[in-house]
Amino acid sequence: MKKKPIDELKNRLTEITHLGSTIAVLNWDQQVFMPAKGAEMRAKTIAHLSGLYHMTLIAIDSDGLLTNLKSDLDLERKQFSPKDRVIISETWRSFEREKKLPEAFVKELSQTVAEAHTVWVEAKNSNNFKLFQPWLEKIVALKRKEAKYVGYEESPYDALIDLYEPGMTADRAAVILNDLKDFLIPFIEKIKKSKVKLNPKKIQGKFPIQKQKELNELIAKQIGFDLTAGRIDESAHPFTINFNALDVRFTTKYSEENIMQALGATIHEAGHGMYEQGLPSEYFGTPLSESISLGIHESQSRFWENMVGKSKEFWHYFYPKLKKEFPQPFSKISADEFYLNINTVQPSLIRIESDEVTYNIHIIIRFEIEKDLIEGSIEVADVPKIWKTKMKEYLGITVPNDRQGALQDVHWSTGAFGYFPTYTFGNLYSGQFTAQMMKDIPDMKKQIAKGKFDEILNWLRKNIHQHGKMYTAGSLVRAVTGEPLDSKYFIEYLKEKFFAIYKL
Amino acid sequence: MKKKPIDELKNRLTEITHLGSTIAVLNWDQQVFMPAKGAEMRAKTIAHLSGLYHMTLIAIDSDGLLTNLKSDLDLERKQFSPKDRVIISETWRSFEREKKLPEAFVKELSQTVAEAHTVWVEAKNSNNFKLFQPWLEKIVALKRKEAKYVGYEESPYDALIDLYEPGMTADRAAVILNDLKDFLIPFIEKIKKSKVKLNPKKIQGKFPIQKQKELNELIAKQIGFDLTAGRIDESAHPFTINFNALDVRFTTKYSEENIMQALGATIHEAGHGMYEQGLPSEYFGTPLSESISLGIHESQSRFWENMVGKSKEFWHYFYPKLKKEFPQPFSKISADEFYLNINTVQPSLIRIESDEVTYNIHIIIRFEIEKDLIEGSIEVADVPKIWKTKMKEYLGITVPNDRQGALQDVHWSTGAFGYFPTYTFGNLYSGQFTAQMMKDIPDMKKQIAKGKFDEILNWLRKNIHQHGKMYTAGSLVRAVTGEPLDSKYFIEYLKEKFFAIYKL
Repeated sequence: MKKKPIDELKNRLTEITHLGSTIAVLNWDQQVFMPAKGAEMRAKTIAHLSGLYHMTLIAIDSDGLLTNLKSDLDLERKQFSPKDRVIISETWRSFEREKKLPEAFVKELSQTVAEAHTVWVEAKNSNNFKLFQPWLEKIVALKRKEAKYVGYEESPYDALIDLYEPGMTADRAAVILNDLKDFLIPFIEKIKKSKVKLNPKKIQGKFPIQKQKELNELIAKQIGFDLTAGRIDESAHPFTINFNALDVRFTTKYSEENIMQALGATIHEAGHGMYEQGLPSEYFGTPLSESISLGIHESQSRFWENMVGKSKEFWHYFYPKLKKEFPQPFSKISADEFYLNINTVQPSLIRIESDEVTYNIHIIIRFEIEKDLIEGSIEVADVPKIWKTKMKEYLGITVPNDRQGALQDVHWSTGAFGYFPTYTFGNLYSGQFTAQMMKDIPDMKKQIAKGKFDEILNWLRKNIHQHGKMYTAGSLVRAVTGEPLDSKYFIEYLKEKFFAIYKL
Repeated sequence: MKKKPIDELKNRLTEITHLGSTIAVLNWDQQVFMPAKGAEMRAKTIAHLSGLYHMTLIAIDSDGLLTNLKSDLDLERKQFSPKDRVIISETWRSFEREKKLPEAFVKELSQTVAEAHTVWVEAKNSNNFKLFQPWLEKIVALKRKEAKYVGYEESPYDALIDLYEPGMTADRAAVILNDLKDFLIPFIEKIKKSKVKLNPKKIQGKFPIQKQKELNELIAKQIGFDLTAGRIDESAHPFTINFNALDVRFTTKYSEENIMQALGATIHEAGHGMYEQGLPSEYFGTPLSESISLGIHESQSRFWENMVGKSKEFWHYFYPKLKKEFPQPFSKISADEFYLNINTVQPSLIRIESDEVTYNIHIIIRFEIEKDLIEGSIEVADVPKIWKTKMKEYLGITVPNDRQGALQDVHWSTGAFGYFPTYTFGNLYSGQFTAQMMKDIPDMKKQIAKGKFDEILNWLRKNIHQHGKMYTAGSLVRAVTGEPLDSKYFIEYLKEKFFAIYKL
């Protein structure tokens, strides 16, 4: 008996996803456990597998299976269930993009970024932008080439951001981020002038890493990250990766002095991880078991990190534990003092260490630079200078070196252009989701204060996670909140929280 | 410009090896770090990649590339360098074997052993040989079928052992192992009657795992395992796995009471690991970067584990460190006493816990049984009884149950018939290599006593590791020692060491 075309498609998708999942294991190992000398060969292995992945993806339509299904769908020649409709159209969307990229190009890009990553680590460690510069130039050239292959209407950046936030364009992103910038710059100025002086250093100490690890694991577990279907490890830059919904791993990064560094990263990445663990594993291989977009993904991590993990209620519950485990220095610090100081707004150099207000300025700077790089209006060699100028202009601070400036983030070394703005989209989505959640779960804050997170997680599971790619980001926001994306919710959230903290 | 056929072959081999290396990463992760719920999907991913690997291997000759090269070589139609000759003939050897096995047979075998393994685990846990018996019968029947497909001259066992120890036959193995048995049985009897009474329990204690880890890493590093091109982790069963010569990983297993459990495993696996790290990475993908045989591999691990790691000189150097790190109980135990007790010879039930003398009897028993099974001269149903009889006859001990008898080892459940004797070949090779090394490095023992291992490792690198598969096991032994394999060297080594220990 011959397979139905839609079932044959699902079968091929599953095979492709096994390959994708395998590449993810190689990548995870590369960043977490691989010994240094293994780097060169690993880059080649990943390049080979990526080529194979690409070929297999192309082969999905070698006999016209996908094209025929897409026509059947478009011309309504056949009846498909809503789920199958999404499987066909979403597969078509990514297939169409992949098909446009020549195999040699895909191999070159993947090998370049694998090697560039190693160089970036070295360049960052030695504060040597010049070392990284030729690699970044090569990557920018390749990404511009990619945009040409993929095609675009207005800006080559459109073709890149679309990969992370489908439907988004350079122009629309610029409008959204400019609006936010217009609010943030005076808002930050106001905070600077407040008489309330907070400082995260007030809650620093000497925290043994092993004890921190236990605490991080405990909190990740309690908010709902399933450690029997995942792992927590360490890496230079925290990240979450999933092989499937039942094997989701994230990393964090410890500081002996600053307990919030790892905790912030852990709660953030656990937010990503819980989204992945909440995707329906029974649809493994199909878009129905995949996340919607990076922006929606980030809304999950930022929700847990900030709306939950930096709330008064959260620390009402966890602070006594912290105090018990680390009497030095917490026996002398009140819960309220701790809450206020972890929410210090302070323009600073490093994005991942920045507070939830100035964070978005860091993103806006990266967005403006990478958009200009891709559009060809600035040169890679000028990035450090431009970086410094913008940091001065928007945040009023001086960048002393590139290690704390343009070299601080891994993204560009991996070729991820168009990725940064999704961080801020995540904040905007999370602001809007939170407003809705507080209507649906009126005692949400009380639950957090009791260390109960299951109803909150279930709300996210039901409204967001379980759907996979059934919705686009735009239609999901509409379905869940009744409105299109509007930055007012996030702005309102910031105002309410920080007006109180800074007594404005 | 068209590629030369030999270069095209190397190219295809490299692609296959990237796939093999990837499957190794998946397997390593599965055994070391994977969370429990990931197991089911990981099995599917590995199955998918293994299918891909097999298909790619078959496709190597889809256009006759390999067949033509083999004919060019055999008929001397073309000139090939010695290295290229080996690449062609060794590739042909493994390809030819694969090709002889019908796809349906390969599937049946792989499915049978996958299920049989699960049954074996249950049978072992519940001490129920009858449960495993029908599966072992099925596996034996399939392995006899495999031997028929592959072809043999004298014994079907020849076709199976050839997979692990190329060129070895049932008859030759029987002669070698019988000679050894004729020496060992009276030798063990003598040791039993010695007035010297040793017991490894005398050096047990309570050793914190974290401190043990540091010691294991230090020793592995000092003997020459390159931790920038490898890792040490933990797993239920210690193993070594290589992704390429620059990324070689092994695992060990800690016991809080018995410090030698992990140390023995670490030094053993580091021996395997150093062989893999010594293979020439520039020939990645070809047989020139692959180990010769399981026996030669085992000669490396056993050399380091026993000839070095259980020598008086080794502990002369390391015992003061041990004493310093673990004053309990070592402050009250002399270096000599430690050395004597770790070399206790004591007939026992479990192969992997046995000493370096009786170990070989365990192997001989397995060899005799599996050879008879494959040749059809005994029945699977009689294996437990035969096992008990031989254990009584050769070692004088009574096997109380099958869990500690015929069910103890995983090998047969995976279809690995012909694998066991390579463990003892490893001992014999290492004995012969050591004798030669002591001629070439007259102060070898003094160097060990000073904690210097570089000249020893360089000897192994130069004489064994760097050659990859340029030699067969037989020709390597001849080239390095000037003689064919002869068990007298290992026997002499045992006599010298244990006559002294047991004052015989």
